[in-house]
Amino acid sequence: MSTITVGVLGAGRIGRLHTDNLLRMPDVRVKTVADPYVDFADWPPDGIATSAEPEFVLSDDEIDAVLICSPTPTHAPLTEAAAAAGKHVFCEKPIDLDPGRIRRTLDAVDRAGVKLQVGFNRRFDPTFARVRQAVVAGDVGEVHIVKITSRDPQAPPVSYVRSSGGIFLDMTIHDFDMVRFLTGLEVVEVFAMGAVLIDPAIGDAGDVDTAITTVTMAGGALAVIENSRQAVYGYDQRVEVFGSSGSAEAGNETPNRVAVSSAAGVRTDNPLYFFLERYQASFVAELEAFFTCIRDDREPLVSGRDGLMSVLVGKAAARSMAESRPVRVEQP
Amino acid sequence: MSTITVGVLGAGRIGRLHTDNLLRMPDVRVKTVADPYVDFADWPPDGIATSAEPEFVLSDDEIDAVLICSPTPTHAPLTEAAAAAGKHVFCEKPIDLDPGRIRRTLDAVDRAGVKLQVGFNRRFDPTFARVRQAVVAGDVGEVHIVKITSRDPQAPPVSYVRSSGGIFLDMTIHDFDMVRFLTGLEVVEVFAMGAVLIDPAIGDAGDVDTAITTVTMAGGALAVIENSRQAVYGYDQRVEVFGSSGSAEAGNETPNRVAVSSAAGVRTDNPLYFFLERYQASFVAELEAFFTCIRDDREPLVSGRDGLMSVLVGKAAARSMAESRPVRVEQP
Amino acid sequence: MSTITVGVLGAGRIGRLHTDNLLRMPDVRVKTVADPYVDFADWPPDGIATSAEPEFVLSDDEIDAVLICSPTPTHAPLTEAAAAAGKHVFCEKPIDLDPGRIRRTLDAVDRAGVKLQVGFNRRFDPTFARVRQAVVAGDVGEVHIVKITSRDPQAPPVSYVRSSGGIFLDMTIHDFDMVRFLTGLEVVEVFAMGAVLIDPAIGDAGDVDTAITTVTMAGGALAVIENSRQAVYGYDQRVEVFGSSGSAEAGNETPNRVAVSSAAGVRTDNPLYFFLERYQASFVAELEAFFTCIRDDREPLVSGRDGLMSVLVGKAAARSMAESRPVRVEQP
Amino acid sequence: MSTITVGVLGAGRIGRLHTDNLLRMPDVRVKTVADPYVDFADWPPDGIATSAEPEFVLSDDEIDAVLICSPTPTHAPLTEAAAAAGKHVFCEKPIDLDPGRIRRTLDAVDRAGVKLQVGFNRRFDPTFARVRQAVVAGDVGEVHIVKITSRDPQAPPVSYVRSSGGIFLDMTIHDFDMVRFLTGLEVVEVFAMGAVLIDPAIGDAGDVDTAITTVTMAGGALAVIENSRQAVYGYDQRVEVFGSSGSAEAGNETPNRVAVSSAAGVRTDNPLYFFLERYQASFVAELEAFFTCIRDDREPLVSGRDGLMSVLVGKAAARSMAESRPVRVEQP
Repeated sequence: MSTITVGVLGAGRIGRLHTDNLLRMPDVRVKTVADPYVDFADWPPDGIATSAEPEFVLSDDEIDAVLICSPTPTHAPLTEAAAAAGKHVFCEKPIDLDPGRIRRTLDAVDRAGVKLQVGFNRRFDPTFARVRQAVVAGDVGEVHIVKITSRDPQAPPVSYVRSSGGIFLDMTIHDFDMVRFLTGLEVVEVFAMGAVLIDPAIGDAGDVDTAITTVTMAGGALAVIENSRQAVYGYDQRVEVFGSSGSAEAGNETPNRVAVSSAAGVRTDNPLYFFLERYQASFVAELEAFFTCIRDDREPLVSGRDGLMSVLVGKAAARSMAESRPVRVEQP
Repeated sequence: MSTITVGVLGAGRIGRLHTDNLLRMPDVRVKTVADPYVDFADWPPDGIATSAEPEFVLSDDEIDAVLICSPTPTHAPLTEAAAAAGKHVFCEKPIDLDPGRIRRTLDAVDRAGVKLQVGFNRRFDPTFARVRQAVVAGDVGEVHIVKITSRDPQAPPVSYVRSSGGIFLDMTIHDFDMVRFLTGLEVVEVFAMGAVLIDPAIGDAGDVDTAITTVTMAGGALAVIENSRQAVYGYDQRVEVFGSSGSAEAGNETPNRVAVSSAAGVRTDNPLYFFLERYQASFVAELEAFFTCIRDDREPLVSGRDGLMSVLVGKAAARSMAESRPVRVEQP
Repeated sequence: MSTITVGVLGAGRIGRLHTDNLLRMPDVRVKTVADPYVDFADWPPDGIATSAEPEFVLSDDEIDAVLICSPTPTHAPLTEAAAAAGKHVFCEKPIDLDPGRIRRTLDAVDRAGVKLQVGFNRRFDPTFARVRQAVVAGDVGEVHIVKITSRDPQAPPVSYVRSSGGIFLDMTIHDFDMVRFLTGLEVVEVFAMGAVLIDPAIGDAGDVDTAITTVTMAGGALAVIENSRQAVYGYDQRVEVFGSSGSAEAGNETPNRVAVSSAAGVRTDNPLYFFLERYQASFVAELEAFFTCIRDDREPLVSGRDGLMSVLVGKAAARSMAESRPVRVEQP
Repeated sequence: MSTITVGVLGAGRIGRLHTDNLLRMPDVRVKTVADPYVDFADWPPDGIATSAEPEFVLSDDEIDAVLICSPTPTHAPLTEAAAAAGKHVFCEKPIDLDPGRIRRTLDAVDRAGVKLQVGFNRRFDPTFARVRQAVVAGDVGEVHIVKITSRDPQAPPVSYVRSSGGIFLDMTIHDFDMVRFLTGLEVVEVFAMGAVLIDPAIGDAGDVDTAITTVTMAGGALAVIENSRQAVYGYDQRVEVFGSSGSAEAGNETPNRVAVSSAAGVRTDNPLYFFLERYQASFVAELEAFFTCIRDDREPLVSGRDGLMSVLVGKAAARSMAESRPVRVEQP
């Protein structure tokens, strides 16, 4: 299998992003993109087939792997169908909002013997990967505290909020995965506090726009995640792992390294605006890792179990906030 | 009252620090230092009287103001006695560990009509004061999140831990005051998680050495305070206030501004080692502010009520951890 | 001309780099790569023709533009031949080491009416472009001083040094162009000091490995360029423009934004290692700009005159060092 | 000699600064301040004698050491007189503008067998001392390049410029000393370029306000010093030493460590405004070092020869600019 042939299910923003990245990869061929809601007038480029039917992709024997970039409710059924068809699966997060449904999907993948990688791209960000490397190298010692700052530049429309599953399953889910990735430890218990400080309409939709989640890890380490739906200065994505031997801390990426001094002070440009800019390299790297695990027949770096765990933690966080008490995380 | 005459009660580390600072201030005269447990063999310098008896200071009509730097259990009775003697009082924190006792002391101060300033020196640190200034100037907008990192360089001896009142009343109390100072908002509810990760003996003494406390402020803003008793790279003291218009963030102070690049990477020196170095300027500034409020007959910048509130928040945090639930803060 | 068809002359490191970048560009087709010294066994990818003969490219009517990536002595004759064949030319720097030869080449380009862009890629680096933008926006005011630090991570082999034209025409030439780019001002006079501090063999080859060049710009502004052939911590590429209203300063790019604190201090990773990593984005951007100027029939952002000026300044610097006196720069 | 008794000659800005610092030092007594042009109405504090006559100080047998803070033309004669009277001398820079005169003064000091320390306070700045420490520790390896940025926040009045001896003897003289201090190497040759870009009146007074000086050190290392009389964002004082093993770089000191992020970018406060703020600690440390060398009978850390060398280099720089050629520095 020198060249891997890929089909893409879903041609929205993330599907197009992945496809465009695939086109620049050696030994990868994008054969077909399927989406029932897109007319493909101006995209994809010549040479890629299109279809309204996912089945058209899944039944194509030439296709080795599929990327599932369709809406969340389709993730589980499409993953199962692809696995049944013998395709390796790269699935955007979350696999589903229902842990039971995720478990059935993971069982189906196991039975089919295909690879499943979940789209927690941030693990592949060079800066966060460097923090993980410091932890693995022992520079931090035994982990005591993890701190994550995760703020979007702009609150999403309320229509999006309504179908998002709530801030903990939509936004913090990435940070839950990051805590697990950075430490290699499992989450045991969470306590979440939320507030509506940015947009009352978000509160009317039953969600919060500002949240602080504290986490107990297996072995006793603590973590704290702080989220805001709106940082007017841009996408604020920082992490720190602190332990018995020191600390590894990741600051924000900026578009340049220029400081402008004037009588009014010293100014630098804001962080990269949002996830497409900030995590550009990670989107490429996660797909490269997916293909490598297929080629080398290894376990994916982000497993189905990782996808399940982040949802279990998110569920516990949502309940914690609702009931105003710490909640133990259901174990897989 | 051009020159203010001062007596110092307590000649331990902080009493000596304050006295040495007083000696460099214009229009301030240190007349007497009293401490029953110190023999004054090599300190203070010539020209300052010494005594084993606080009463010797309190009964001296020349003395306008006293600094109470003695052990915590003596703070409240000495403050009351000094107030009754018509002296202005600068009292180290905490006034007492019992809110009821603090209230009685504040009443006594009120009746006596003297000034009382509590030793929350960090409010006078140039870096934290600059953050407060940004908040007051509106650079941050409406406050949404406050983040405080507060880590000591080395865990205290267990003997100290035993009589400290616990991490929330000994260490986090400064951070509770900082949250209130930075935002100008009152604390409504706290949830505290703790762990013993550094020294099991601290756990045996009934305390924790690592803690994360989340706070709800009046109006809905959230705060999170993260404490460790041991950061091997030095005293880690950072704050951030984030809001609708932006963020003001304070990093650590370092002994110099030098970066050394080599094949092994780029190195800078660690943060200033501990509070004596880090908060040197603030110790001077808090006393200057105390004398200014005496001279100008103004309210102290850190009031007795501030001293009470930080203890009430600390008590709530301790109970929150003990009962593993959020606890509302008793209001004064 | 929706798609531009390109031929590449020279398949060494820079020719391959450009070709690989071209393959990712929309509306650009690489038709042929020619190099008499390369056997093309493992490169380029399928679909690109190869030849040992530049003439094979220049005589191809389908080809709109050529990239000249061959050795320096061939730059001028190939540029002239390409222009005569009606091809637009992107030529690596320097066009030639002899100003008279460059002038004849520029005349030939003018007569042919084709575009010529010279490969001063650093102008397209996001960080340096941001400094230029600050200057243009007036943030710096009237320019007083330009400072450039330009240090390679490792000295080149002496064989390379011998045919390089010397440090001022090989290495500092980029910095001379940068001074002109950042300020929009012309260089009037230079004074150069050099030393052999890294490798005596470089001195034996008649060159220096460490140099400081001071520059007077038209209007009186001063510039200073500091070069070293070996910075053991990586590629050190910094600039500052200082003027009547302030300063714009560009620091080094690093592979991540992580700081690791330990008892030994705070460490960050070294700058990106060398020009392929550091200037990756600029290599793409300079070609995009080249194609844009062809499509829109505009002047290239790096003109033939820019190519000539940097050589004239480099010549003056070399003479200044040889004669130990300031030397006026010959004007075009 | 447990307590050192000091007389201060000159009660201008620097004389008062030193005196106020002396008052805070243990085991140092300021007995007398002398200045013929000051009426001492509001300064010094009680307990310090005053006089219009330097002789009054020099003839006082109780006085062990004098600080010479009077105008430059009096430095040499007062140093000689003080030495003849057996007083140790701390003399502000420069000792004189005439190297021959300095030599005679140094001879007189030698004959008298007293200590002489010259006021190059920047050597005692914690940040620059840290750079020197890195060089001494071998972190930089063999020194190749020294870079100094030295910009004042505001141009001095033209009246000051007229009597200053010119930018190289007034301003750059500190930087010449810094090059020697940081490297431990002697200056061999200089080339200086200057321009009048800030205030034409400075040019009319025969001086420049912007200058770049390149320096060859003994052994071949190069240095470059860049000066401006006006950086509108504050006092810009940075140094870097680069060598075979790496680089040690000192950035500017700022009044706090706060970054304020908003939609307009990330802002930090400007560097400390001028030398009184920036070098506060160094003024204290240089006097402490002076007293230590008296008490321990050691050589001063800034010798008379250091004072002479900086003037010799400054003279060479002035001639270099006047004659537009590199000039060798006269050796002592």
